[in-house]
Amino acid sequence: MLVLGVDPGSRVTGYGVIEKKNQYVSYIGSGYIRSSERIPFYDRVYNIFKSMKKIMDEYGPHEMAIEDIFYAKNVQSSLKLGHARAAVLIAAAERGLKIFEYTPLEVKKSIVGYGRAGKEQVRSMVNVILRLKQNLNLDTSDALAVAICHLNWTRYSPPAEISRCSNKFSHYKKLCK
Amino acid sequence: MLVLGVDPGSRVTGYGVIEKKNQYVSYIGSGYIRSSERIPFYDRVYNIFKSMKKIMDEYGPHEMAIEDIFYAKNVQSSLKLGHARAAVLIAAAERGLKIFEYTPLEVKKSIVGYGRAGKEQVRSMVNVILRLKQNLNLDTSDALAVAICHLNWTRYSPPAEISRCSNKFSHYKKLCK
Repeated sequence: MLVLGVDPGSRVTGYGVIEKKNQYVSYIGSGYIRSSERIPFYDRVYNIFKSMKKIMDEYGPHEMAIEDIFYAKNVQSSLKLGHARAAVLIAAAERGLKIFEYTPLEVKKSIVGYGRAGKEQVRSMVNVILRLKQNLNLDTSDALAVAICHLNWTRYSPPAEISRCSNKFSHYKKLCK
Repeated sequence: MLVLGVDPGSRVTGYGVIEKKNQYVSYIGSGYIRSSERIPFYDRVYNIFKSMKKIMDEYGPHEMAIEDIFYAKNVQSSLKLGHARAAVLIAAAERGLKIFEYTPLEVKKSIVGYGRAGKEQVRSMVNVILRLKQNLNLDTSDALAVAICHLNWTRYSPPAEISRCSNKFSHYKKLCK
C-alpha cells in the first residue's frame, strides 16, 4: 500500500510517499512545492493544486494522510493555510484518494512519542524509521511523518467504515498515539 | 460581458451572475451552495469546488469577482473560510476565468457608499440596482454586490495589465469606491 503524506503550507507544501509491504515500511519519494511570492496568491494556490495532482499521477498512492490543523499564528496566516490545505484536499478528491487527517499532536506522539517535539526531532526519527541519510527539508520530513503516523494507526486495522482518526473514535486515536 | 460574483463561506457560498451591455447592467441568475454539516469537512470543500465548476459551465462567465478577506472571527473560522475560498478560486482557474478581488469595504462603498453598511442595506441596494423584487438570501445578495462592484470599477477601463483592485493601484481603488 502506497501512502502519500502532506504537510500543507501557503509558502512551502511538503510531500512524501512511503510503502508498506508485509510489516516493512520503505521510503519511495518526497519533495516540496514552493511557489514564487511574486505571483498573485490565487495563482500560488492553483499551483499547489496542479503540482499535487502531478505528484499523485506520478506515484499513484492509494491513500493520503494530511495534518488536521486547529491552530495558526493569526487570522491572516490561518486564512492562507486554509487555502493551501484545500488545494491539496481537492487534488486528492479529484484523484479519488482516501483522505485521513491527524492532528500535529497525534503525528508527533506517533513518531517521537512526545506531542511537543520540535521539527528537527521529528526529522531525526523519520530518518531512523525510513533508514534515510539525506538531510530532508523540514516540510518534507513533516509530510513523511504524517504518512508514517497513518501507517502506525492502520496497523491496528480499524473497522472499514472508520476512515478518519477523528475525535469520535478516541479508542483508535489512542492506538495512533 | 458576463461577471460572476462570489461570496465564499464554508457553510454557505453565494453566487450571482450579471451582464453588462453598453451601459446597462442586468441580472442573469444567482443562488447559493449549502453543504450538509454531516459530511466530512473535506467533502464539503470538494462539493463547493464541483458546484462552482457546474455554475461556471452553466452561465459561461468571462470574469469572476470575489471578496478578498482579511478578517474572520477567529483562527478556526478563518481556516474554514480559507478552504471554501480556495475551492472557488481553483474552480475559476480551472475554467480559465479572470479573477478580481475586492475587500468587503470596497464592495460596500461601491454599492451603498458606506464601508460599514449592513448586509440588509447591501441587499436593498442590490435589488434597486438590478431591478429585482425577490427576497434574496443574504449570501446571494453579497455575491451580486461583488459583481456590481467589479463592473463599477471596470467602467473606468484601467490599463489591461492591472487585473486586480490591489493596494498598489490606489488611484483605481478610489474609482471603485
